[in-house]
Amino acid sequence: MGYKEIYALYREHIVAGRLKPGDRVPAIRALASELQVARKTVETAYEILIGEGYFVSQGAKGTRVNPDLVLASAAEPETATAPPTSDHSLRETKGELRLGIPALDAFPHKKWLLISAKAARTLRPDEMVLPPIMGHQPLREAIASYLNISRGLNCQPEQIFITSGYRANLRLILAVLAQPSDKVMFEDPGYFFGQKLLKRIAPNLHYVPVDRQGMDVDYLLRYHPDARFAVVTPTHHSPLAVTLSLPRKHQLLEWAQQNNSWIIEDDYDGEFHYTRKVIPALKSLDVHDRVIYTGTFSKTMMPAMRVGYLVMPKETIARFSELGEILETGMSLLPQKILAQFLSEGHFYRHIKKMRILYQQRRRMMLEALQVCFPDVFEFELTDGGMHIVAFLQRGTQDKELAEIWQRHQLRVLPLSGWYMQTQKRYGLVIGYTNIRSVEQASALLQRAEAETRALLL
Amino acid sequence: MGYKEIYALYREHIVAGRLKPGDRVPAIRALASELQVARKTVETAYEILIGEGYFVSQGAKGTRVNPDLVLASAAEPETATAPPTSDHSLRETKGELRLGIPALDAFPHKKWLLISAKAARTLRPDEMVLPPIMGHQPLREAIASYLNISRGLNCQPEQIFITSGYRANLRLILAVLAQPSDKVMFEDPGYFFGQKLLKRIAPNLHYVPVDRQGMDVDYLLRYHPDARFAVVTPTHHSPLAVTLSLPRKHQLLEWAQQNNSWIIEDDYDGEFHYTRKVIPALKSLDVHDRVIYTGTFSKTMMPAMRVGYLVMPKETIARFSELGEILETGMSLLPQKILAQFLSEGHFYRHIKKMRILYQQRRRMMLEALQVCFPDVFEFELTDGGMHIVAFLQRGTQDKELAEIWQRHQLRVLPLSGWYMQTQKRYGLVIGYTNIRSVEQASALLQRAEAETRALLL
Repeated sequence: MGYKEIYALYREHIVAGRLKPGDRVPAIRALASELQVARKTVETAYEILIGEGYFVSQGAKGTRVNPDLVLASAAEPETATAPPTSDHSLRETKGELRLGIPALDAFPHKKWLLISAKAARTLRPDEMVLPPIMGHQPLREAIASYLNISRGLNCQPEQIFITSGYRANLRLILAVLAQPSDKVMFEDPGYFFGQKLLKRIAPNLHYVPVDRQGMDVDYLLRYHPDARFAVVTPTHHSPLAVTLSLPRKHQLLEWAQQNNSWIIEDDYDGEFHYTRKVIPALKSLDVHDRVIYTGTFSKTMMPAMRVGYLVMPKETIARFSELGEILETGMSLLPQKILAQFLSEGHFYRHIKKMRILYQQRRRMMLEALQVCFPDVFEFELTDGGMHIVAFLQRGTQDKELAEIWQRHQLRVLPLSGWYMQTQKRYGLVIGYTNIRSVEQASALLQRAEAETRALLL
Repeated sequence: MGYKEIYALYREHIVAGRLKPGDRVPAIRALASELQVARKTVETAYEILIGEGYFVSQGAKGTRVNPDLVLASAAEPETATAPPTSDHSLRETKGELRLGIPALDAFPHKKWLLISAKAARTLRPDEMVLPPIMGHQPLREAIASYLNISRGLNCQPEQIFITSGYRANLRLILAVLAQPSDKVMFEDPGYFFGQKLLKRIAPNLHYVPVDRQGMDVDYLLRYHPDARFAVVTPTHHSPLAVTLSLPRKHQLLEWAQQNNSWIIEDDYDGEFHYTRKVIPALKSLDVHDRVIYTGTFSKTMMPAMRVGYLVMPKETIARFSELGEILETGMSLLPQKILAQFLSEGHFYRHIKKMRILYQQRRRMMLEALQVCFPDVFEFELTDGGMHIVAFLQRGTQDKELAEIWQRHQLRVLPLSGWYMQTQKRYGLVIGYTNIRSVEQASALLQRAEAETRALLL
């Protein structure tokens, strides 16, 4: 037993309330003999405990637990601190069919951990000072290079601003570029966490309907030509997974240029397109620099990383930088270093490529299982990409009730109608399939809810 | 040479513009023979390059650099992207006498790197999913335990909300608890980055003068009894380093309780108190739970960590949780794990204790050097703690000019008058001393600016 164990033991006793303020503790000599360790060992432990204020030495009168120690009583009853249950289950850390969670079994953990450990081990003292406001330079370079090659952008590392993800991107963009009264347009249906956030931070929020060609740009031009911001998911709409048509893309870009408005492109899963060609980002067509491109590694790598980024139009860089200074946006360096290394060694590219194939297979498995289990319940409008399937109800509007049933069986699907605000609702389930491993496994999951689903709908 | 090197080489050639879209690349067989590697090696490299879109294979016609590849031209002239120079130099990553930077030479790097590498190596797949909104549970526990023991609090881990630091704390608290019209009080003089942030996010911002007993609570009660928030640095005022007197502490707490107002306690360097006893936090006297305690590890550990925390009054936890969900506040897990381990193994306590002694010595060195070099320029009002010295000008008001001179010599001091808003200004330099190693070194630094200082002031 070393001094650390003795120290930890006493601290634990005190914190747990087994030893109370004012209690006597054994003399050093006595404890050393009892534990059969050197006197010095106990002495060192006691010194630390005294130094930290757990013990007080009273000279010849021995040593006591500090009588002035104020500890949170371990027995204090639980206060009403449970977080409110969310109306959506995206935050659930357990359960199946969750949305937006990458295939956890296919992540190159070993490689990641090796790179992490190396980055952690080699952090230099000079890197422990202030992290750069807009992010770690090598990571900005790696992201710019990735976007230029894989998403068709043409950006410089100086345009990359590293954030903690999707919502941090939206908050930062609006904080830098928007006046409170600015009109902000959001897709309807649209990513509900985006919706919830914008309702709080953009008082003048409006919606644009979405059809099979994506956001209805004609509607935008007719009713809200004066909007200052349009938040759009052009590659795969969230949640319908449709792609914004090329004519609409050009129409949208032209509108933004003529009105000096900003398009916020949310390219949350643009990499996962399963037909022959990956679709370049809307930003790749943006000759007038009116698109603020945003992305995240939560969907492509792992959610716990909390690293996202945005591409600043060149004319806005100084304003982002200025507000970044005020808000102190620089993030913890270590995760950025790890990620930069992972990208620059090419692992990210390989991983994405593998996932593109894997997700295509898993989507097929999920679809097959859905069609076998529920041939008379759902119908599908197949799109070319995305990380989830929308299973439309063939009839009826009870998707909320249905989702609740599935949720009770730990199937974390979401009711489609919950993503709509004003546009006439459609009904169905939004189902994540990225962690499905076989048709059999998918079927087994679906069977949990089969009887109740039939009882509800048929 | 393996496939990785070949892959990296070609990618580099392309990104640097040495190979252009449409350029032919050698046949696999030819390159393999040229490089004296197996055909398979080149094949693998080419496959990856094709998969990532750098190359396109044209069957019998060979392989080319993807003609559709759009690359940011490496030769593109630099755009006007330089960040605006800040009016204060806190963000400087180089230079001496910086404020708020812990003693970098005394940080237990080796221990930290060991713990980091271990935490990085052992991150479990289930930890890669969603990070908790209010922070990593073991870190919340470690922080609660630390605050209860070292700062006299009596809080539960459930009350700890982990953030990215001081400004994130302020933003989150106001976002959760404030209406836009709420009156917010700030100290005058006061931490200028806090001031700058609040000017942006709190439209109804007012100031309370500070004297030798800290914030003038009588003034607050007389002129702004209706304030909803008071941001205060009770342990060591920023920058005057005076301590809020006990009667005023009680007065302030009583005001908050009677008016249902909130006190935001900024305990940024409360650990560094050099008289016999560390002063317990204001929060330790707060029986009615009206104080929101905030702290950061930037000052006690290293700035690049970007981990801070706040202690939520119990009745507010549900509201913090709800907004945390909307804003998606969970931070990258790895730094939190490392820090939790560092705390729970007791290293943090030992480090703080060592720093308390070291800073006391370094402060003495700096004072001695200042008194020897500039006996006729500065005067001092010695306080009991803090990480900086305020050197008041014996006469005159030219502290801005003086600070500029020192800055030119890489001495990153700040002019005291710049921290004032409305209260009658005092003049002097705010000097960080935590990285001073000897009186001689401090004197050598000061001598850089000695002649010009005398020329300006005497």
